[in-house]
Amino acid sequence: MVPEAATRVAELRAQDRAIDHLGIEVVSVAAGSVELAFTAEPTMTNGHGLVHGGYLFLLADTALAYCCASLDRASVTRTADIAFLAPVAGGARVTAVAVVRASHGRTTICDVRLDSDGTLIAEFRGHGVTTR
Amino acid sequence: MVPEAATRVAELRAQDRAIDHLGIEVVSVAAGSVELAFTAEPTMTNGHGLVHGGYLFLLADTALAYCCASLDRASVTRTADIAFLAPVAGGARVTAVAVVRASHGRTTICDVRLDSDGTLIAEFRGHGVTTR
Amino acid sequence: MVPEAATRVAELRAQDRAIDHLGIEVVSVAAGSVELAFTAEPTMTNGHGLVHGGYLFLLADTALAYCCASLDRASVTRTADIAFLAPVAGGARVTAVAVVRASHGRTTICDVRLDSDGTLIAEFRGHGVTTR
Amino acid sequence: MVPEAATRVAELRAQDRAIDHLGIEVVSVAAGSVELAFTAEPTMTNGHGLVHGGYLFLLADTALAYCCASLDRASVTRTADIAFLAPVAGGARVTAVAVVRASHGRTTICDVRLDSDGTLIAEFRGHGVTTR
Repeated sequence: MVPEAATRVAELRAQDRAIDHLGIEVVSVAAGSVELAFTAEPTMTNGHGLVHGGYLFLLADTALAYCCASLDRASVTRTADIAFLAPVAGGARVTAVAVVRASHGRTTICDVRLDSDGTLIAEFRGHGVTTR
Repeated sequence: MVPEAATRVAELRAQDRAIDHLGIEVVSVAAGSVELAFTAEPTMTNGHGLVHGGYLFLLADTALAYCCASLDRASVTRTADIAFLAPVAGGARVTAVAVVRASHGRTTICDVRLDSDGTLIAEFRGHGVTTR
Repeated sequence: MVPEAATRVAELRAQDRAIDHLGIEVVSVAAGSVELAFTAEPTMTNGHGLVHGGYLFLLADTALAYCCASLDRASVTRTADIAFLAPVAGGARVTAVAVVRASHGRTTICDVRLDSDGTLIAEFRGHGVTTR
Repeated sequence: MVPEAATRVAELRAQDRAIDHLGIEVVSVAAGSVELAFTAEPTMTNGHGLVHGGYLFLLADTALAYCCASLDRASVTRTADIAFLAPVAGGARVTAVAVVRASHGRTTICDVRLDSDGTLIAEFRGHGVTTR
């Protein structure tokens, strides 16, 4: 029996130390679509009080991994790109909505949109490759 | 008088809370070339004991920022892509060597190579845009 | 009065020598969404009888330009990436469906899906920047 | 006996109809480095008299293929990205210099720089995957 999407994501999340450390929450899970969120900590900011893009990438990349898992296609990221469209201040809440765009053989292409306070802040596209 | 590359990077680094929090070190600085390093903490790992790609992206992206600053072109990242070529275990030391490949108007293209223990682990390319 | 999407695309197309030369057809136009198609000529193939990826990129990139124009945001491409998912034989008909994913200031992010004979062959994402 | 780089590229080129059609020349070949060039035809231009980015992508992508072949790693492109930095007028001569940046398993990362009349016009990075 294939486990449900939510169960697969919960299993993956339970083993993930970095996600706990960063306070990333799983807001919703469906097959092929996942929403995550976190609140940017002051320790995530640079000298201008803005959140490092690396933390936004990390949130998006985690959403990709969970999104692949929701389809029972547990994957690691092979390549990814991100466009930063608006800055995020420390303390802001950021959401990431991941949707599978295409899958082909062992590759899954996943798009992730990052928003904060109603503003689009980044667009991410990644290619996952299944781990087995 | 234009400040030297090392001074500019040191100023940028002094204001950066995330970099302190992650223990990122500036190994060397020249005009248009920077080397950074960190040791991956256990809190940076996922359920497989492997370092989250987001932390590798963050290291590379910081190298890009410092590399642009070394040329007195303080920049924020507009777009970036990364290819993950080999996994990194928790506890490993990771180095990032950034080199400016091209600059054009307000855009700087910077390539960053990430290595750990003699193995190429990721290649990053980012486009910075000057902040003024 | 703002011209309609179809008129704006028709004006752009009328001036485009390469598009005529390659036999690219405008299948449909709406505000923020465009479908193009062409039939791959034998002169577009490599030694294996497969269509050069550059021609697929060209079709997708043209779809991006027309898609931006359909929103009265005439643009040139600043950056673009493409993933090739399946080969295309000479003589095949290829369609490109472009949809605007996000716009921010002078930047428009546009996704283009390429299909041939019911198979997804490539995914393209490009960033256009308005020409004025 | 492993054939020399130049022989391998010549074999690939001999089978390539599109390259002949476009007048792409092989300027030089070494192991892991290739230079190509073409003269942009009027039929490659859009309504502004500028060369379509797709033709520049095609030149770069061909340089990637030949560069992989020069190392006896005949490859097809899996993913590629390009940044367009300056426009090219119809009739201009364009050169593409490709260099292998990294190889890992069946993947080869290749960077291609495009110049015209002493000006950097585009930077391309592609991932080839060996065909066998």
